[in-house]
Parts: sequence; C-alpha cells; structure tokens
Amino acid sequence: MASMTDSGKHYHRECTGLALETVKQRSGSEDITLFAGCFCPFVQRVWVALEYLDIPYKYYEVDPYKKPQALLDVSPKGLVPALKLNNYSPPRALNESTVIMEYLEDLAAYSTKRSLFPSASDPYARALVRLQADHVNRTLVPAFYRYLQAQDPEAQIAGGKEFHAAIEHLIELFERAAGEVGGTGLWKEGGELGWVDVVVGPWIFRATNVLKHYRGFEMPSGTKFHAWLGRLFEHPAFKKTCSTEELYLDSYERYAFNRPNTSQVANAINSGRGLP
Amino acid sequence: MASMTDSGKHYHRECTGLALETVKQRSGSEDITLFAGCFCPFVQRVWVALEYLDIPYKYYEVDPYKKPQALLDVSPKGLVPALKLNNYSPPRALNESTVIMEYLEDLAAYSTKRSLFPSASDPYARALVRLQADHVNRTLVPAFYRYLQAQDPEAQIAGGKEFHAAIEHLIELFERAAGEVGGTGLWKEGGELGWVDVVVGPWIFRATNVLKHYRGFEMPSGTKFHAWLGRLFEHPAFKKTCSTEELYLDSYERYAFNRPNTSQVANAINSGRGLP
Repeated sequence: MASMTDSGKHYHRECTGLALETVKQRSGSEDITLFAGCFCPFVQRVWVALEYLDIPYKYYEVDPYKKPQALLDVSPKGLVPALKLNNYSPPRALNESTVIMEYLEDLAAYSTKRSLFPSASDPYARALVRLQADHVNRTLVPAFYRYLQAQDPEAQIAGGKEFHAAIEHLIELFERAAGEVGGTGLWKEGGELGWVDVVVGPWIFRATNVLKHYRGFEMPSGTKFHAWLGRLFEHPAFKKTCSTEELYLDSYERYAFNRPNTSQVANAINSGRGLP
Repeated sequence: MASMTDSGKHYHRECTGLALETVKQRSGSEDITLFAGCFCPFVQRVWVALEYLDIPYKYYEVDPYKKPQALLDVSPKGLVPALKLNNYSPPRALNESTVIMEYLEDLAAYSTKRSLFPSASDPYARALVRLQADHVNRTLVPAFYRYLQAQDPEAQIAGGKEFHAAIEHLIELFERAAGEVGGTGLWKEGGELGWVDVVVGPWIFRATNVLKHYRGFEMPSGTKFHAWLGRLFEHPAFKKTCSTEELYLDSYERYAFNRPNTSQVANAINSGRGLP
C-alpha cells in the first residue's frame, strides 16, 4: 500500500452497470424525486429502500461538488440524499438518509404494504433491529471513514482494527437476534431484505472494493457471515443500485488520500466531530 | 465564573422532590424493570416515555460508578438506561435510550394505544419529528457536554455559542413543522407531549439549572420558545421525573470541572469521539 500514489482520479457523475440501467428505468416524473450522487452510500440506502418497498420515484443525479440550485432548494446543506415531494404545493423536501428511510417505511405501510421491519406485533424483534442500526450509524460508519482517510501506517492499522471490530460486533448483534427471535433480515437463512441490511449494506459493499483496494482490507471469516454477504450482494433490490467496481475505486481515491475538502463527511472525520 | 472552584461535590444516588415520590409509587415488581440513575438525562427520556405512554414499570436505581452485577447482566457496557423484561424466561434486556423509547412506543400501540408520534396516517409529519430528533441526538446533546466540560474561557465561549445555535436550529425545525403540518408536540399551542419534547427535554431542563449555574448560560429569548419551555416543564409526565435543583448542581459538578473518568459520555467528548 505504501507505494500507492494519488493518481488524481475524479469522482464519477453518472452510474455504471446495473445501476445505470435502473436510472434509465427511473427517469420519468413521479411524486417523489430522489436527489442522488452515484457513489454515495447514504444515497444508496434510500435507493435500495425505494426499490424494495416498491415506491415509484424519479432518480435525479446531482454533482455534490457543484451543487445545483435545485439541490439547495431541497437540502440547505447541499447534501444528498434528498427527496423532493412533488405532490405538495409548494413541493416539500426531506433530508437525512435514516429519516427518509423511516418516511418511506411509513408510506409503504399505507400503499404497497411492504416493510423492512419485523412485524409490529413483535416489538422486541423490532428493537433488536434498531439496536443493530444504532451500532451501524454511530460506530461502523464513522469507523469506515476514519480507516479510509487515515494516512500514516499506524493510523491505518488502528483504523483497520476498529472497522473490523465494528463488523464483528454487528455479527454478534445478528447472532443475538438469531438466538432470541429466530433472526432478522437476510442474516436469517431464507429471510428477506431487512432494515439493517439496507442501513449497513452500502459500506459493507464498499469494504469489498474500496477498502480492499486502498487499504488491503480483508473481511472477517465465517461461513454464516459470508453466506449473508452473498445474499445481500445478490438481492435484486441491492444489486440494481450497484455500479461497476471502477466507479467506486475512482470516486473514493480522494478519500483514500484524504485530499482537502473531499466532502462534509470527510471534514467531520478529520475534525473529530460527528457526521453531518 | 472564573473564580468558581471544584468543591468536590458527589453525585446523588437517590432522587429528590417529585421524582422521589414517583420512585416510591413505582417500587413494586412489574414486567419491566427500568435500571436508572437519578441524574442521568438519557434515563429521564425513557422514564418520561414510560409515564406518558402509561406502561407499568419498576424504577430501580443503580450507582453508575459502582456498577452492580444486576446492571452488567442487562447492559454489557454498564450504561443506564437499561430495561429488564421479566416476562421472558430467561429475562431479556434492552439498551440505548432511543431504542428503548421506540420499543415502548411499539408496545403502547398494542396496549395503552398512546403514542408520542403524529398519526401513522401522516408520514410527513412523522418525518419532521424524526428530523428534529436527529438534530437533537447528533448535534444538540454533544454540544451540551462540550460546553459543560470546556475548561478554558475561549472554549467555554465557543461551547456556549454552539449550544445556543443548536437550540436555535431546533426552534427553526419546530417552526418549519408549524408551517408545514400545523405543529408537532408541545410546540403547538394546545398540543400534547411529543417524541422530541421527550428526546430533548432532559438537556433543556439541565440547561436551565446546570448550565446556568456553572456557565452562566442564558436561554434564547422569544415568546413562543418560552411558552414551550413552560408547557414542557409543567407537563405532568415530565415534572414527575424531575428532582430538585440541588441534585443536578451537585451531580454535574464533576462534568463542569471535567474531572478524570467522569463518565463514558464525558470521555467520548474529551477524545472527540461519538457518544457511547
């Protein structure tokens, strides 16, 4: 890794592969417009949820580094993902990936009847899912960026251990749910895509390409874990939001070399603050 | 402020005032045991939710600095609040204040039919509430501790500005909800206690005693804001979980002088990491 140099690659501004096909299918006007960035994992969460919950939407790619006014109108900080809700006059807007996911879950309860959560009749199973999601949001996701942005070898080693431990703890939480409520989401053999699969999926996926390429990261071993990875990456709603590997490797080079002003997320990590 | 010295006051280990009366009423065995610390704001969130949602529970005070085995059995990190669910064999446990609140909300939907959220038929109003809560958890609460733990005058001034701005932004989010959906929670005149009132209430309350005493903090002005403060502090479910001022001033002296090993929360703030 030490010999790798910043080749100045540019982030992509258009999806590739299966994701591009999905974008083309989702280009017509709908009540919901998803303001998206093709490489952004927070966007991918919302995108997978829209696909899985079967809610109609239009995909609208924006350049997060040259924020168009249309984005600033729906997202004061200029962050993606953002939803524009065109069925209101004037249109309304929503931000924050998990807030948007909860909104879509609530919408689906009244329309498509699909859900990413265990049944409302099992509050304890739902709580275990929320506990998993809390760990992902507060520990695993920040650890991903600290690891990727770490420049000196010692910090990279520490970052790798921290990220590895965060995945191991998620596995423990999955196993706890397996023991107590028979499993949640795709961790359960024969299970369906669940809330935490969507919440963590984009970073787990980028660990297998971006972290592997730039940091030599290897996933934890374990048959059950790798079976889960397989089910996640092959799930139709997840797979159709994935671009080809080149898009991620190119787009994350700026993080891997911690270039100045890489993103608001990168700046927050560098300054030791919570994510924006 | 500069002349104030650490008088070595000890945190309290028992509620006082109205909170103590509530503890006495909630001392019998129930399906739910709340593992609590009398001065902890994360505990107070769950406590208010239990009271408002009218879910039976037993209040069980633990010393967070001398963690009994019973606490470690239900909370591996030894953090309060924790719930022990005695109606399972073996008993189950839950941690994390917001996860527990969601659990209680789900439970109430099947039992007391009470709710802290806008109706499920208004997903957008619910999303605005989640946006407010996201701001409280990720910005306002960490800002409270950074301010209280700041020792040199410049850091205290910066901390005060940051906390003040976090409250101002919450007010903006309340006003947005007032404009778009007619208001949420107690911000709405004649409204009922809502999710964010409970999520932010304990720190707003401590701002009026702990931050005022140790940092000379003054709340933002504004008629609507102060009317909201009045409705919050006088709401029966909130008021009955409040001890007398002395308990908070004594218990937070260790934070105000940033004594070593004050708490896992304090350590996280000092190291620039997310809250545990």
